[in-house]
Amino acid sequence: MKIVILLFDNFTALDIVGPYEVLNKLPDSKIIFAGHEKKEYSDPYGLRISADNSIDEISGADILLVPGGPGIDVLLNNLDVLDWIRKINRTTKWTVSVCSGSLLLAQSGLLDGKNCTTHWRRKEQLRSFNLTVMDERYIQDGKFITSAGVSAGIDMALYLVSKIAGDKAAMVFQLAIEYDPKPPFDCGSPEKASSEMLGKFRK
Amino acid sequence: MKIVILLFDNFTALDIVGPYEVLNKLPDSKIIFAGHEKKEYSDPYGLRISADNSIDEISGADILLVPGGPGIDVLLNNLDVLDWIRKINRTTKWTVSVCSGSLLLAQSGLLDGKNCTTHWRRKEQLRSFNLTVMDERYIQDGKFITSAGVSAGIDMALYLVSKIAGDKAAMVFQLAIEYDPKPPFDCGSPEKASSEMLGKFRK
Repeated sequence: MKIVILLFDNFTALDIVGPYEVLNKLPDSKIIFAGHEKKEYSDPYGLRISADNSIDEISGADILLVPGGPGIDVLLNNLDVLDWIRKINRTTKWTVSVCSGSLLLAQSGLLDGKNCTTHWRRKEQLRSFNLTVMDERYIQDGKFITSAGVSAGIDMALYLVSKIAGDKAAMVFQLAIEYDPKPPFDCGSPEKASSEMLGKFRK
Repeated sequence: MKIVILLFDNFTALDIVGPYEVLNKLPDSKIIFAGHEKKEYSDPYGLRISADNSIDEISGADILLVPGGPGIDVLLNNLDVLDWIRKINRTTKWTVSVCSGSLLLAQSGLLDGKNCTTHWRRKEQLRSFNLTVMDERYIQDGKFITSAGVSAGIDMALYLVSKIAGDKAAMVFQLAIEYDPKPPFDCGSPEKASSEMLGKFRK
């Protein structure tokens, strides 16, 4: 199982590492980080992850994972990356995204006619592609799975493992990462948040 | 707020990036990755994170975060790292760990007489230090907070933010990472897992 994760500057680190920590446990799997160039990429706070390959060196994947982050907006105009996503998607069994990564799939045309989701702050932007944007933690439509914001990639990856390797494998992976979440507050989605909290996000 | 995260080879990536994605949102904070040497460190599956500094270059921190991973066992015998942890701890407001990172704090003597926790698979090892090992998602004892396995670092970090910057800040950060977890299965702790699942972890 060849799993390719797209890197770019100003990624959101947990968008990547949440699903990574689940998918790396798939038997006979290899995770490859690929960027427009073969170099280190940084998130907005200084964490850097190295791309093993440039996208030119990757011609196929079983799973393509597109994370999100503030850098996604720049990438929406990168024709090389959009062409590469379309090319790789022709080879994948699964094409998945976390957070605002779904915007890149939408821009590449791959989500046309599909149900999808994204980070709650990006839903209006995703709707501008004339897609059916759902209020779900993650949503599968055919071989595409898109996720809500940041931490939702963990839930999505466990679901993806259940589809690939069965429920028992996914349950063992969930236990391995001791994923029995107990957030200190119950405010992790806009429906649960106060208007005061939501006000903090206005630009 | 100077936040130092210890890097070493064979770290568990989500132990680091879970709390990182929460703590990086603290105002006026700077996160520094430090390793025994200033170089790239790798997890068991090939993800590499660069240390900005060697531990020799770091003489203090407001928060010291020690992640876990299979590499922790080698580190338990690294006197340089143990000395450095004791030295940095004398400067910290908070000394925290995720997963098996608590073993390193225990080995350095810092958890003597303290309540603490770790990944469910490491509890026997942590008990061998004659500590009170609790079945909690995370546990605070004075300025020390230790967490259960891997994903528990996210919950711990939100709690830590609530202590540093107040509940409202922590709630806004939780909403920013859309942390409204919906694991596909309810099996993320040994108490919830079947004996068949637990059997998969026997060596």
